[in-house]
Amino acid sequence: MKKTALSELGRRVKAPPISWLMELALSRPQLISLAAGFTDHETLPVGPVRELFAGLLSSRRTGQPALQYGSTTGDPVLRQLTAADFSLLDGVLEPRKVHSPDRMLITNGSQQLLYMAVEALCDPGDIVLVEDPTYFVFLGILQARGAASRGVRLDHDGLNIGHLEQVLERLKRSSELRRVKMIYIVSYYQNPTGVTTSFEKKVKALKVLRRYEKAAGHPIYLLEDAAYRELRFRGADIKSALAVKGHSDRVIYAGTYSKPFATGIRVGFGILPESLFAPVLHLKGNHDFGTSNLPQKLLAQAIVSGKYEEHLATLQKRYAHKARVMRRALQENFPVEVELWEPGGGLYYWARLPHSIKTGIKSKLFQSALAHDVLYVPGALCYCDDPTRRKPDHEMRISFGAATEENIRVGVARLGAVLRDLIK
Amino acid sequence: MKKTALSELGRRVKAPPISWLMELALSRPQLISLAAGFTDHETLPVGPVRELFAGLLSSRRTGQPALQYGSTTGDPVLRQLTAADFSLLDGVLEPRKVHSPDRMLITNGSQQLLYMAVEALCDPGDIVLVEDPTYFVFLGILQARGAASRGVRLDHDGLNIGHLEQVLERLKRSSELRRVKMIYIVSYYQNPTGVTTSFEKKVKALKVLRRYEKAAGHPIYLLEDAAYRELRFRGADIKSALAVKGHSDRVIYAGTYSKPFATGIRVGFGILPESLFAPVLHLKGNHDFGTSNLPQKLLAQAIVSGKYEEHLATLQKRYAHKARVMRRALQENFPVEVELWEPGGGLYYWARLPHSIKTGIKSKLFQSALAHDVLYVPGALCYCDDPTRRKPDHEMRISFGAATEENIRVGVARLGAVLRDLIK
Repeated sequence: MKKTALSELGRRVKAPPISWLMELALSRPQLISLAAGFTDHETLPVGPVRELFAGLLSSRRTGQPALQYGSTTGDPVLRQLTAADFSLLDGVLEPRKVHSPDRMLITNGSQQLLYMAVEALCDPGDIVLVEDPTYFVFLGILQARGAASRGVRLDHDGLNIGHLEQVLERLKRSSELRRVKMIYIVSYYQNPTGVTTSFEKKVKALKVLRRYEKAAGHPIYLLEDAAYRELRFRGADIKSALAVKGHSDRVIYAGTYSKPFATGIRVGFGILPESLFAPVLHLKGNHDFGTSNLPQKLLAQAIVSGKYEEHLATLQKRYAHKARVMRRALQENFPVEVELWEPGGGLYYWARLPHSIKTGIKSKLFQSALAHDVLYVPGALCYCDDPTRRKPDHEMRISFGAATEENIRVGVARLGAVLRDLIK
Repeated sequence: MKKTALSELGRRVKAPPISWLMELALSRPQLISLAAGFTDHETLPVGPVRELFAGLLSSRRTGQPALQYGSTTGDPVLRQLTAADFSLLDGVLEPRKVHSPDRMLITNGSQQLLYMAVEALCDPGDIVLVEDPTYFVFLGILQARGAASRGVRLDHDGLNIGHLEQVLERLKRSSELRRVKMIYIVSYYQNPTGVTTSFEKKVKALKVLRRYEKAAGHPIYLLEDAAYRELRFRGADIKSALAVKGHSDRVIYAGTYSKPFATGIRVGFGILPESLFAPVLHLKGNHDFGTSNLPQKLLAQAIVSGKYEEHLATLQKRYAHKARVMRRALQENFPVEVELWEPGGGLYYWARLPHSIKTGIKSKLFQSALAHDVLYVPGALCYCDDPTRRKPDHEMRISFGAATEENIRVGVARLGAVLRDLIK
């Protein structure tokens, strides 16, 4: 049998570009990986989770529901707690409408929500606008779906609105606007740049999108990926796009409990506009008819008991410290020619090198770093395939999430030495 | 904005037909539901899970990995244990090849494996053969994907092979064979009929499929859904289709730990032929880059400690008992005109009424049962939309899974009274 039975999706889907890096790191234990987006091992809440489970499973009354099927939408208590928390954070005056538990869906990490949003909106050939650069796994979802993407330039406070308008205008002129379904932004401590989108930019972006809806012939949504929102260690929280008055019906909000509590539990949530709630809920029904009940009950208990808040505070302090360790190491070791993007939270530094220094897997820099046992994520992996511009390849993402302090120091020093060598 | 931005998938996806029944049951607490496919509340292993977590989370060494991200394929220990168990069950001589941990993927319940198998193989317009009747959520997946289905008659020992050949022959004549990607069978204590497929039928089915591959121009797979395999309470285990010599490269096996241990943990697994492993793995990467690590570590510990086996034995005894309670109630209350299908495991009885008695949601029987506060699953919901035959609508699925013994007795008695009333 020479021919394959695979569907178009099955033929298109690929391994994420990062998986090669991950395997490399696993196969060479001496390698210092500043590439992994894992969270800090030390901070995982082993003690709190042990106590929470001991409580939850101490009686059949509370234990049985945690071990039984739940509903496809997710645990009602967790949804209520989440809705209350996030409407408070967003200072929304109509919490019942915008942040209602009835618009909320618990998912297997926020990743599943991203996947289902693309499933619900995109046919092959449709177009999704993304930040330039953006989260590479999302690009993989689009690629497998056969959707195209266009990059929108990223400033230090989020989308470059002028460029967003240019991109939309160009798509309008080429009669491709009817294929544009949404824009995807990672709005807090973005992966990979660490950039946080200001509230003003959210307002402006939503207004711009709305202006092009008539020509598109349908709504254009904004998918806000807030995966890192809680990992803030500087500045005040910024309201989500759901808080933009008169536009919440165009916002899909993807949140998560994995990163702020424990990545091993993989519980995320989505807040969806009414127009999308039923289709996405029914997709979820087909995927798995509901996220595992056990971690949901655990999280609800963590929130109610205060352990969640307590752990989050520890986590924030820890990442703030590790970010400082990395900053100091960068200042001491990286040549002044390198432009560093300073995050106010999250897990990443973004470094922009002189244009002449390439960072890709085949570059001298990458190979030399590897020879010195240090790994980073080449910037080019984070850029979509946009036919209207060349893919930048002189940047890198370096993470202080998973590495130990010692490894951050040593890894950055090695990387700095390699860089100085190349730049001089 | 009148037009929708939804994709074709987003527009096609529907609520499962059963969700209306579920909501009904929730909104009327006095209702006795013999419809739910939930597992027995009483048997949920609260004590064992408490002890397992206490152990797992007693040290940071074992606790941290359970709370950290895992890999997309799933926990290596759980995959190894599962592979060893199932190759033993299947008596396969080449366990390394057929049941290799390298061919195994941990999923969010077996449901996610079913979803991804369809994603990887089916484009809109493709055809999947299913048992007639079959698991309705699977029909929902096909419908949303835009795939068509054809029913293959079900005997008491599985697929009617003569009919399978007829269906394939007809598809060959109408030049539709190239659209046929797989056959889906629920091979143990089938949902909804309780039928178990004999090993001989698996051998024959795979041989028949292979004969038609040339005309199809590609492999035709057999997706074996073994969700109920471990819930056996009579007879010996039957080998899976993976054990059919020379054909394991056409078998996708979907197993689960949810039903035999605890439904709230939602951990399933797939064993995939080499040709499909990478595409499905990469789909999983896009879905959620790996099932939650915590329940996987829990299960691995449950298996190693013997608690899993112990619990399963309790469960099997309990369901055997509840099935006996239901059988007695059926014998005492159902008219002799009703043909009962006796299961050797699983959660369901299947009842075939005289053709004149309809069982659908609008039927006298269903409405009268509802008026007497008892709920069953109408048989028609379990039949695919097959243009080549009329959909039977004189059957019902009744479950002894979730209901208490008392409710089984009272519910069946009420249903029997309604039936006697209609038949006389």
